[in-house]
Amino acid sequence: MASAQRTPDASLDFSHDDTLVAELLDHLRPLADLRALGALAGWDQNTALPDGAGEVRGHQLATLQGVLHDRWTAERLGTLLGELGERVTGPAYSDADRGLLREAKRAYDHATKLPRGLVEEMARVEAGAFESWRRARTRNDFASFAPWLSRVVTLQREVADRFGYTESRYDALLDQYEPGMTTRRLDAIFPAVREASVALLRRIEASGTVVDDSCLHGSFDPDTQVRLCERVLRAIGYDFARGGIARSPHPFTTSFGSPFDVRVTVRTDATFLPTSVMAAVHEGGHALYEQGSVPALARTPLAGGASLGAHESQSRLWENAIGRSEPFWRGQFALVREAFPRQFATVDAATFARALNTVRPSLIRVEADEVTYNLHIIIRYELERGLMEGTIAVEELPGLWNAKYRDYLGVEPPNDADGVLQDVHWTSGFGYFPTYTLGNLYGAQIYAALRRAVPDLDDRLASSDTTAARSWLQQRMYVVGATYTPDDLIERVTGAPPDPAYFARYLDDKFSAIYGLPRP
Amino acid sequence: MASAQRTPDASLDFSHDDTLVAELLDHLRPLADLRALGALAGWDQNTALPDGAGEVRGHQLATLQGVLHDRWTAERLGTLLGELGERVTGPAYSDADRGLLREAKRAYDHATKLPRGLVEEMARVEAGAFESWRRARTRNDFASFAPWLSRVVTLQREVADRFGYTESRYDALLDQYEPGMTTRRLDAIFPAVREASVALLRRIEASGTVVDDSCLHGSFDPDTQVRLCERVLRAIGYDFARGGIARSPHPFTTSFGSPFDVRVTVRTDATFLPTSVMAAVHEGGHALYEQGSVPALARTPLAGGASLGAHESQSRLWENAIGRSEPFWRGQFALVREAFPRQFATVDAATFARALNTVRPSLIRVEADEVTYNLHIIIRYELERGLMEGTIAVEELPGLWNAKYRDYLGVEPPNDADGVLQDVHWTSGFGYFPTYTLGNLYGAQIYAALRRAVPDLDDRLASSDTTAARSWLQQRMYVVGATYTPDDLIERVTGAPPDPAYFARYLDDKFSAIYGLPRP
Repeated sequence: MASAQRTPDASLDFSHDDTLVAELLDHLRPLADLRALGALAGWDQNTALPDGAGEVRGHQLATLQGVLHDRWTAERLGTLLGELGERVTGPAYSDADRGLLREAKRAYDHATKLPRGLVEEMARVEAGAFESWRRARTRNDFASFAPWLSRVVTLQREVADRFGYTESRYDALLDQYEPGMTTRRLDAIFPAVREASVALLRRIEASGTVVDDSCLHGSFDPDTQVRLCERVLRAIGYDFARGGIARSPHPFTTSFGSPFDVRVTVRTDATFLPTSVMAAVHEGGHALYEQGSVPALARTPLAGGASLGAHESQSRLWENAIGRSEPFWRGQFALVREAFPRQFATVDAATFARALNTVRPSLIRVEADEVTYNLHIIIRYELERGLMEGTIAVEELPGLWNAKYRDYLGVEPPNDADGVLQDVHWTSGFGYFPTYTLGNLYGAQIYAALRRAVPDLDDRLASSDTTAARSWLQQRMYVVGATYTPDDLIERVTGAPPDPAYFARYLDDKFSAIYGLPRP
Repeated sequence: MASAQRTPDASLDFSHDDTLVAELLDHLRPLADLRALGALAGWDQNTALPDGAGEVRGHQLATLQGVLHDRWTAERLGTLLGELGERVTGPAYSDADRGLLREAKRAYDHATKLPRGLVEEMARVEAGAFESWRRARTRNDFASFAPWLSRVVTLQREVADRFGYTESRYDALLDQYEPGMTTRRLDAIFPAVREASVALLRRIEASGTVVDDSCLHGSFDPDTQVRLCERVLRAIGYDFARGGIARSPHPFTTSFGSPFDVRVTVRTDATFLPTSVMAAVHEGGHALYEQGSVPALARTPLAGGASLGAHESQSRLWENAIGRSEPFWRGQFALVREAFPRQFATVDAATFARALNTVRPSLIRVEADEVTYNLHIIIRYELERGLMEGTIAVEELPGLWNAKYRDYLGVEPPNDADGVLQDVHWTSGFGYFPTYTLGNLYGAQIYAALRRAVPDLDDRLASSDTTAARSWLQQRMYVVGATYTPDDLIERVTGAPPDPAYFARYLDDKFSAIYGLPRP
């Protein structure tokens, strides 16, 4: 049994000599293995799956979910969790033990509330909805996707009702992605975020300042873009010996066993460079987090991020706070120029970085600037919450979507492909989107702590040194994986509980400078 | 219940309204799903797995094998197979029912003879051996691979002993890949194949004829090669809507759910075009077979090939009998010329096809000509049989390998990378190699039947028509999947039981013409 005086490292290892902990690990590790194979199937679905294989892949994922469900609901696991629950609060147990128990309990509680048939049905519907969405988006045909989306809505309502909730059915789903988060908490945060975003946007528009982003538009060979993305990923410290890059219609990061196999995808746009390059930095942030957890946590639910919000904090911190800063590009602009010498012959790093911060209300979430980004999220949150609470019907979505875009952002989607069909997320369920905005909030708070800890951060970035930032994040945050809850983690990393004020300040400071805004 | 008068299609569907058959299908389909996810992990291992992920992938595969083993050894499955065994011989049951029972029994018998721990250990050792082999081949370092190979040998001996055998321990392993095949049967075939090969080789050497294959050597952009491979695959009828192509160090075909998702890989050599193009035709033959089975058999052990020998008959038939023929290239040479206009400006289809039939004893199996190919196989068969029977030790392999290459082929490997380390197969076990030669024998017999059935085959190929060949093979062979045993299948397709004489005649006719040999 481990002693009460633990070194920091010991707090991140399990009490292997405790027979109950050892048995729990023996139960959970194969679950992590099977989950990884499911993630691999998902990666393949997005990067390589042939058109004709959608249905058979759906069966495979359904079967896998059934196997996982059987093991997550095993009676012995329930007993084990009960026995350990009374013990692990003691000093003989490590933080990792406690985190493991917490995460295992969450998964066990969720799994035991759902019958196996429902879990398998969800996997099949998700695969079918994904294929339908892919075709519908290409053909700009929401009507063909609507029946699949309705099936997802019905299943997600059933899931939420089985999980149970106090105030909103939506809470039950949200909690899956962001433990402890509720609509009540979001309702205390999002209106302020919306108001701050709109106010800042109005000030920017009123300033009359126009950022020239013409250098980002042009002709950029897609293969060369991918090679540039690889170099940028290396520059921020992504380890290709434990990862890889592919192309997909929607960029994402996935893990088949963190920290040993964490992969990213990018999407290229032959006429607009940031689509690939900034996706690479964004996904690189996710990947650094997954590659950073201590190997002792491998093959357990603690390997990887604490929550989707925590994850998004890192993708957004790297993409925006670092990756859209002038110091970063002063350090890395040579890569861009080597990749596209003709296009950037007369452009300097400052012009390039400034161009990356153009603020302009737009239609597409993944290409939105930092000021308007959260408005895209709030729209989705309001719509999906309405779907779950029964105040919105699937058929109303395109109209409501367009109305909200007019209202919040002042833009009008010309078609559903660039409107309600743009994101893949609803093919698998609801409750995910708010984690993007939570990530922005967490990210700003963590970035502020990073700047306090590394006062010469800008100088280092400007001299191509990304190690200082990465090391601090690694040691403070990545290494612990999901050992702590998101709220605890933020407090451990930054010294304060989650506070949305950091984000408002970050945004205001950054864009006041770029757009030369008068202080309000 | 289906009637005794079955249409040909009905013989290839299951008696879904029979409750035992339905229950068997319900048991087997998830097994097919899980097997497909394992195949996907194997594909990924060969095409994308990062260096640092070998160990964690090993755990994942071990866990999956454990799950499969649990389900293949389920008591209820044993009871079901026993109950069905007494019934399915009757006319109310289909050929598919009988085939399903036969294949399920084989798998159940194999699985129940192995403890789960051994199955998991095999998966872990296979993953470790694969990584070790990959590094050892790069570094030309057999000694570093030897301990892993020894572990494979020990495990394979245990597997064979647990399976049981009458005459040779090797028989137990061989039967896994080629049901019904034994060392006794091989010993009645292989010496004649060896003698015929050596005799033909001597006559070719004595003829003094030299085939000019200089057009195949040069500088060929690898990306362009892969695009050419895609076009050649389309030309033989491979369906990309149910497949895909990638690159790997060793070309192969795999299925994640035949006939809906069947993928191929190729390897490119920047200085020698056939490495990629002929691999594409070879793997295309495997893939046509897998894509050809009737959808009713999907998600069962009957979807796909009857055996590895049956499979290799199709890869070799397409690669060699069709793919190295002058008529085929008269029909397809435009693709080569469009891909590499400079290199083939003054080369015609006849010269290209002739060059593809250069006979020259060489070191590398996958690049061997048709006359010497089986000598490569017989060497491997003798060595692996010795390893299993205990007459050869792992340490002796490099020396014995080189001695046999000198003896059988008259060539001397300059290093182990081009010698004993060239093939991946021994990382996963023994008993596979003989199926390549069996495939050559079956393939020649099936090709003879195809030529009888399509008398104007050459004219059709020369006019770019590959449909006649593909349709006949599809309807006679591919559609039935693994419904029949290899011996039965050959007889159904060709009208005669397996007979190695076809191959000797095929080889003699073909190469006598190319090399202008006098009749012996």
